Amino acid sequence: MTGGEALLAEIREQPAAWRRLADAHEPITELGARLARDRPALVRLVGHGTSDHVAVYASYALRLLCGWTALGDAMSPALYYGVPAAAPGEVAIAFSQSGETGDVVAWLRAAAEAGARPVAVTNVAGSARAAAAPDATVLAHAGEERSIAATKTYTGMLGAVALLGAGAAGRGAAMAAALRTAADLAEAALPRLEADAARLAERFSDVQRLYVVARGVELATADEVALKLTEVAYVSAKALTATGMAHGPVAALEPGFPVWAVAGDDAALAAVTEAVTRAREAGAPVIATGPAAARIAGAAVTIPTPDAGERLLAPLLSVLPGQLAARALALAKGLDPGTPRHLRKVTTAA
Amino acid sequence: MTGGEALLAEIREQPAAWRRLADAHEPITELGARLARDRPALVRLVGHGTSDHVAVYASYALRLLCGWTALGDAMSPALYYGVPAAAPGEVAIAFSQSGETGDVVAWLRAAAEAGARPVAVTNVAGSARAAAAPDATVLAHAGEERSIAATKTYTGMLGAVALLGAGAAGRGAAMAAALRTAADLAEAALPRLEADAARLAERFSDVQRLYVVARGVELATADEVALKLTEVAYVSAKALTATGMAHGPVAALEPGFPVWAVAGDDAALAAVTEAVTRAREAGAPVIATGPAAARIAGAAVTIPTPDAGERLLAPLLSVLPGQLAARALALAKGLDPGTPRHLRKVTTAA
Repeated sequence: MTGGEALLAEIREQPAAWRRLADAHEPITELGARLARDRPALVRLVGHGTSDHVAVYASYALRLLCGWTALGDAMSPALYYGVPAAAPGEVAIAFSQSGETGDVVAWLRAAAEAGARPVAVTNVAGSARAAAAPDATVLAHAGEERSIAATKTYTGMLGAVALLGAGAAGRGAAMAAALRTAADLAEAALPRLEADAARLAERFSDVQRLYVVARGVELATADEVALKLTEVAYVSAKALTATGMAHGPVAALEPGFPVWAVAGDDAALAAVTEAVTRAREAGAPVIATGPAAARIAGAAVTIPTPDAGERLLAPLLSVLPGQLAARALALAKGLDPGTPRHLRKVTTAA
Repeated sequence: MTGGEALLAEIREQPAAWRRLADAHEPITELGARLARDRPALVRLVGHGTSDHVAVYASYALRLLCGWTALGDAMSPALYYGVPAAAPGEVAIAFSQSGETGDVVAWLRAAAEAGARPVAVTNVAGSARAAAAPDATVLAHAGEERSIAATKTYTGMLGAVALLGAGAAGRGAAMAAALRTAADLAEAALPRLEADAARLAERFSDVQRLYVVARGVELATADEVALKLTEVAYVSAKALTATGMAHGPVAALEPGFPVWAVAGDDAALAAVTEAVTRAREAGAPVIATGPAAARIAGAAVTIPTPDAGERLLAPLLSVLPGQLAARALALAKGLDPGTPRHLRKVTTAA
């Protein structure tokens, strides 16, 4: 099996992985309930790369599901400048697919030493990360991921965060059921999404530069789609908030510089449609994906994703076109999508 | 005067603007002292585009100068999903050059209604932003900015944040003096920096894609340099943490895809030198700027910036090569750097 086929197999395996996670939800939802009893003053979220995108998702999911003040944090103040990593009464959540990223492990230890409750969200039991938070490790249950580009570990960590927040809100079992529904919807949609992604790759096989825009709950999806396109298909893809695009980056747009709009089905959609209008005025072709993709006018390619029912599970489905398009574009360029150049699976550098 | 010359005039005007700000420091440092007396539980920071980069800087500056828990926040949870924008006992700081950005003003009002102390950092007295926080407006004193691309309002807002944090720490007058020293250093260095930027533009006149990496206090500089290159010279430039680059984006690098490293003179430099090593292994040419630029090995172009003495003022100087290079690249491409296409000076969209 080539790397490309391994990547496709892992993309396709996601619904099964989400079902495994739903089956194993109880320790996660119970941890959420325990954390909620202590009413955390602040929840700090850190990660690198794909795991940073999980942190972006968590800053929405944990606020919307259980009302925590959950904010993305930087590790540098603690690691380089001697600032306390956290404070008593806070929860510190570190995300890492491997659980072995050096500075993330160091930050989580520092946060625990500063009196915060450490939580590790990872895919690998027994990792250094897990050891730094032995009684509060959330496992994504995605199974071994062989491709360098993260796919099932990303959506697995999203699902784990949704379960944690729902557990804190006393509705963990309902979220597990919604996760199973999302798995069914994804499984049914995947053949069509694969065909749509192939069509996208054909239309944009020469793309070099691209913006991915979103706002609100789907912002993490924009971040992750941009990273997949960059690391798998070597596109210089940049994620922007739909509103931020108007603050400068719109100037670079031109007919050969597309804008990919991730359209969530909620109040933030207005900002995305406004950004698409600006992109079209600049002559940029538009790619529309997400549950509200059909409501984006004038797109060159439209790939709607299923309505997940539970709003906070929509990002698990809306990232699928990005994963598939990155693979399809890589194949169109003659690249091996499973083994991007210059990359290692585990980045342990401090 | 063409737009390009207006941009250059505004870049050159920065030392004089910083001196005006230093002269007007007392209301800002006194506000910092007042806020410090109430020991804010959390300081939330928001902005779009360049103003978001000021927020990134503030999350370091306010932690390092006065120990506040200062974190970048998103506006969407409050504006689209009905989540409280803030809580009593917190400080909410909104950044906007014009003070008229619709959703930023709405967010600041929502934070005030939720019981937080609102602070507006802007360059325009009497703006809607200023009206949303009438007794806590911090003015950057940069003077009218005619170019669409922000330069002196960016460094002016950085200086205002440094004064605010120093005031909270009881050393406002010392920071004002350090700001004057930084102005002298910038003024002396600007002719050499302009020549260096012209040399950079000559070497990289055909650049289409570029990463700007940094870590720690200089991260905001990377964000801002990338945005200047994008909006003025239409380069698809993406800012990354030096460590984040290894988590995927390194795969896209190749000989025609340079990496611009902003090298701060502190403990975070090790992460930047590691990223540069990875970039060189990938065949990417390297541009090194910042106070520790000379310590980056093997760079194709090296543009050191003066040691500001006060560590937290280094970013005011280290952004200058980026501003100047964006202008020089635009001129090399036959573009008008003062009036980027598709852009308006004030973005009022909600």
